[in-house]
Amino acid sequence: MPDTPNTDFSITTGEIDGSKKIFVQSEDDPSVSVAMREIHLHPSANEAPLKVYDTSGPYTDPSAEIDIYKGLAARRRDWILERGDVEDYTGREIKPEDNGNVAEKYLAPEFPVKINPLRAKSGQNVSQMHYARKGIITKEMHYIAVRENLGRAQAKEALLRDGDPMGADIPDYITGEFVRTEIAEGRAIIPNNINHPETEPMIIGRNFLVKINANIGNSALGSSIAEEVDKMVWATRWGGDTVMDLSTGRNIHNTREWIIRNSPVPIGTVPIYQALEKVDGVAEDLTWEIFRDTLIEQAEQGVDYFTIHAGVRLAYVPMTAKRVTGIVSRGGSIMAKWCLAHHKESFLYTHFEDICEIMKAYDVAFSLGDGLRPGCGADANDEAQFAELRTLGELTKIAWKHDVQVMIEGPGHVPMHKIKANMDEQLKHCHEAPFYTLGPLTTDIAPGYDHITSAIGAAMIGWFGTAMLCYVTPKEHLGLPDRNDVKVGVITYKLAAHAADLAKGHPAAHHRDDAISRARFEFRWEDQFNLSLDPETARDFHDQTLPKEAHKVAHFCSMCGPKFCSMKITQEVRDYAAAKEEAEKGMAEKSVEFKQQGSEIYQPTEAAE
Amino acid sequence: MPDTPNTDFSITTGEIDGSKKIFVQSEDDPSVSVAMREIHLHPSANEAPLKVYDTSGPYTDPSAEIDIYKGLAARRRDWILERGDVEDYTGREIKPEDNGNVAEKYLAPEFPVKINPLRAKSGQNVSQMHYARKGIITKEMHYIAVRENLGRAQAKEALLRDGDPMGADIPDYITGEFVRTEIAEGRAIIPNNINHPETEPMIIGRNFLVKINANIGNSALGSSIAEEVDKMVWATRWGGDTVMDLSTGRNIHNTREWIIRNSPVPIGTVPIYQALEKVDGVAEDLTWEIFRDTLIEQAEQGVDYFTIHAGVRLAYVPMTAKRVTGIVSRGGSIMAKWCLAHHKESFLYTHFEDICEIMKAYDVAFSLGDGLRPGCGADANDEAQFAELRTLGELTKIAWKHDVQVMIEGPGHVPMHKIKANMDEQLKHCHEAPFYTLGPLTTDIAPGYDHITSAIGAAMIGWFGTAMLCYVTPKEHLGLPDRNDVKVGVITYKLAAHAADLAKGHPAAHHRDDAISRARFEFRWEDQFNLSLDPETARDFHDQTLPKEAHKVAHFCSMCGPKFCSMKITQEVRDYAAAKEEAEKGMAEKSVEFKQQGSEIYQPTEAAE
Repeated sequence: MPDTPNTDFSITTGEIDGSKKIFVQSEDDPSVSVAMREIHLHPSANEAPLKVYDTSGPYTDPSAEIDIYKGLAARRRDWILERGDVEDYTGREIKPEDNGNVAEKYLAPEFPVKINPLRAKSGQNVSQMHYARKGIITKEMHYIAVRENLGRAQAKEALLRDGDPMGADIPDYITGEFVRTEIAEGRAIIPNNINHPETEPMIIGRNFLVKINANIGNSALGSSIAEEVDKMVWATRWGGDTVMDLSTGRNIHNTREWIIRNSPVPIGTVPIYQALEKVDGVAEDLTWEIFRDTLIEQAEQGVDYFTIHAGVRLAYVPMTAKRVTGIVSRGGSIMAKWCLAHHKESFLYTHFEDICEIMKAYDVAFSLGDGLRPGCGADANDEAQFAELRTLGELTKIAWKHDVQVMIEGPGHVPMHKIKANMDEQLKHCHEAPFYTLGPLTTDIAPGYDHITSAIGAAMIGWFGTAMLCYVTPKEHLGLPDRNDVKVGVITYKLAAHAADLAKGHPAAHHRDDAISRARFEFRWEDQFNLSLDPETARDFHDQTLPKEAHKVAHFCSMCGPKFCSMKITQEVRDYAAAKEEAEKGMAEKSVEFKQQGSEIYQPTEAAE
Repeated sequence: MPDTPNTDFSITTGEIDGSKKIFVQSEDDPSVSVAMREIHLHPSANEAPLKVYDTSGPYTDPSAEIDIYKGLAARRRDWILERGDVEDYTGREIKPEDNGNVAEKYLAPEFPVKINPLRAKSGQNVSQMHYARKGIITKEMHYIAVRENLGRAQAKEALLRDGDPMGADIPDYITGEFVRTEIAEGRAIIPNNINHPETEPMIIGRNFLVKINANIGNSALGSSIAEEVDKMVWATRWGGDTVMDLSTGRNIHNTREWIIRNSPVPIGTVPIYQALEKVDGVAEDLTWEIFRDTLIEQAEQGVDYFTIHAGVRLAYVPMTAKRVTGIVSRGGSIMAKWCLAHHKESFLYTHFEDICEIMKAYDVAFSLGDGLRPGCGADANDEAQFAELRTLGELTKIAWKHDVQVMIEGPGHVPMHKIKANMDEQLKHCHEAPFYTLGPLTTDIAPGYDHITSAIGAAMIGWFGTAMLCYVTPKEHLGLPDRNDVKVGVITYKLAAHAADLAKGHPAAHHRDDAISRARFEFRWEDQFNLSLDPETARDFHDQTLPKEAHKVAHFCSMCGPKFCSMKITQEVRDYAAAKEEAEKGMAEKSVEFKQQGSEIYQPTEAAE
């Protein structure tokens, strides 16, 4: 490997504070071993370790050998091969235009390991939906059942359901069969290209835990392979369930290969971005052939889902003319420009069934793009947006005819009172296919804080039924997110998704909240940090006010100080209530005794008889 | 003035980027001149400057002379005196226990300017509610009418209402009479102690813009007068509508005096905190006499609203025993401890009418404290919380009997699906008195990000009808907020309050969103920064990716780069749509002409006649 500056990797590995990686075997298929993270509490808590959902892959497993130049172990490859419906073949040659026609020192190095891609044998369909509809519970489905339960079968309080599921149908326990049914019905998807066997299977659907996506990617203005791989590892460390590589500019192909080979989570792309680079940024020069070739290129690499803006129809384009911010989706505006230039329906729409043929040969899922999503609150829920949504619903039916998995993208910028309608319209017109929204931002006046303006909308729409939330970082509208922005975006969306899980009443969601609340009440500071989404920041913030080690076991906090403490008083309240209860019980017993003895105030003495 | 380190003030003054302070005269009372901020846009925008609500007081007015040692001008003093119902008198002596019995170098200096306090003449009531009920529209009410309208009478689109007010009754234009009615009915309050004439009048009520409060204050563990005054000025610079001084520990009296004399916004306190310091932190040693004396002390200083936990009744205390986190309100736990120790109702409850007598002599508003609010999601909406809320409703009626203004405090920690019930119960049991909530936090698992977990709940409950949102900073549960935390907390709550205003359909709320969206669409980067809640951060984030000055006028952003731009394409869409419309109009005209001419395809030539 030549020593090039842009593969000078420094990624973050090692366990997250206070926790360790564990593997839980599926009872239904013992060959399936599911990675989780277990947070260990102080002995004084007298509580079992808390299992939490873990997206970080082998990077947080001290026993795993990490070598970015080799990529992650292909843990799903055997599962794929043993189904007997795939073949390996000599893949498409990498062409100069795949990397923006750069050469020599400008060309990012190829990933060092090469193997032939897999595809479905002629006449076969390798999508999880296809298996599900044939009644097969795949190993991926068994994996997901264990992963989603997080051991809630063991928790007695799992059945104490609390929440308003808003029409979702969330079972007490997730079984492989439940996963299969949801996939078969199209209510959930498992994005896992057969050429990305490095992933740990995950599911996106309204009746499962709400997921989040983190965007990364080169732009024409900067960033390198090392930075993007680092961001991917970093995003999944903190909870990114999927990662979208939205690279534009040069070296797209080679950058993506490094990302996919090292990613434990599904990778999504917007293939039209790369196709546009291949025609030098001139949208009207795009053709179906160039686009098709790009889909094959990316499917062979292992991209797990494609955003395809096939709903941007010619007739909808003029509907955006009176908008405050027109068309803000990059893919949407590319297709709008193409439609106008040629004055016809886009090749994405006219070749939709041809696209389905590719998707099912590799099990790539559709993420049907919302090319006409609103770019500001003023444009929310307008004619153009909902016209496209209805078309996405029609396309969903076509994809399902091919047993191809589908999710639907949604906005964007929507004031709070218009959010619910987005979910309602999506459920109605897209036949319960999973919804995948960007935010939405609930106001436009806070650039620099759009992770927050959008977390408000994301938590709400997640509660209403959105299956995956695409994160927004503090840099949205202003610049490219750096490493810290990625983390802030991920944690912000993780908390929004969790707030949605709580509101929906996911049976195990509240366990973590309850554990951290008990830790808080008992001044187990270290447990509080370790149970939080971001232990490092929590510890750091605490130490800024009370840096001494002794304060981590101190029975007070910086708000009240050592002299007076509301938590301490509660213990006195408990003692009082217990004594009161005891006294009342004593009184009641006396009362019963009294009645049993005939309610006579003066008992006859023995001698009186 | 001795040169003491803790009055080494360095506060932030000067105009906020791209804007200037203006004064708008009331048409109904020309003596009333209302401060606002006007954001000036690039000439290419061809738009009038945008007026925005301004809480920053004289600190952002370059023509104002700022001297922390003198305090702000007493702009309301004449208004108060001319009503003829007050008298000045020799106030209560400052006692050593008011400042924690510290002396010499440990004693924070007294504020250098002293004047006699005012109070209502015997038999008089100086509360705004009292005037309102007598049919008087005070100058404060006129001020507020202009302030809340933000010039919406001038905006034609003001009448294009969009939103779901959730039962609120928001008029197109705010008049002095509307303000008066809302105050008279108890649906809104104007916190403005007659001894705090430095404030710019503001209103808290469901039918007005949603407000936010920022907490500051010394603790036993740190902070100084200079820091607290700086935080107050800093918090109001970014949008804090009121500030609560939650100081504990030493020097409470003197610290508060410096804050009040320099504050352009109402100041709230929790008097029991200071009372507790006077009895060395031993809650059971508190007495009505000590508390009463503390109320007088603070009323004479000019505190505008008092949090009083009079709803913590003895019978409710044991209801908290089974909670995960017991009683977390500091005031609540003080009173609970007192009730248990003495086994009787608290003096706050038994002396409630005596408290009302003090409130109406200075026009201090009640903020009836939720001493039994939940400290975690698991405890939300429980028996103890709602029992206290109903008592607060009863106390509201008593306060109103005295024409004393009241708002009601609310939680705290509430998962999303339980938020609406808080608002519904409050409206029902507290007779539409304004609700003032802390967040609520929608999940407990993200310490370090609780400004965000709570902004989600705050935006929602603001939409549902909460009149003021108490901010939460990133340091919540972990430590004391520094200057940066205060700013992040304020901006986060400002955006949550604004999201609520948009959802409620406040007639002028969307003007700022629309202006920034137009600026974004037209690549007016400077306008985008200046129109945002935090221009400094927006500019800084932009410059991290595109630092060159030229990029501030570049017609592209860092996301798409210079080659391809979705915004640019939208212009082409507009041209197309315009051409299409033109063509269709042409066709339609031809069609009409054709029909008028008898729909004959071949028109007879003149010669043929």
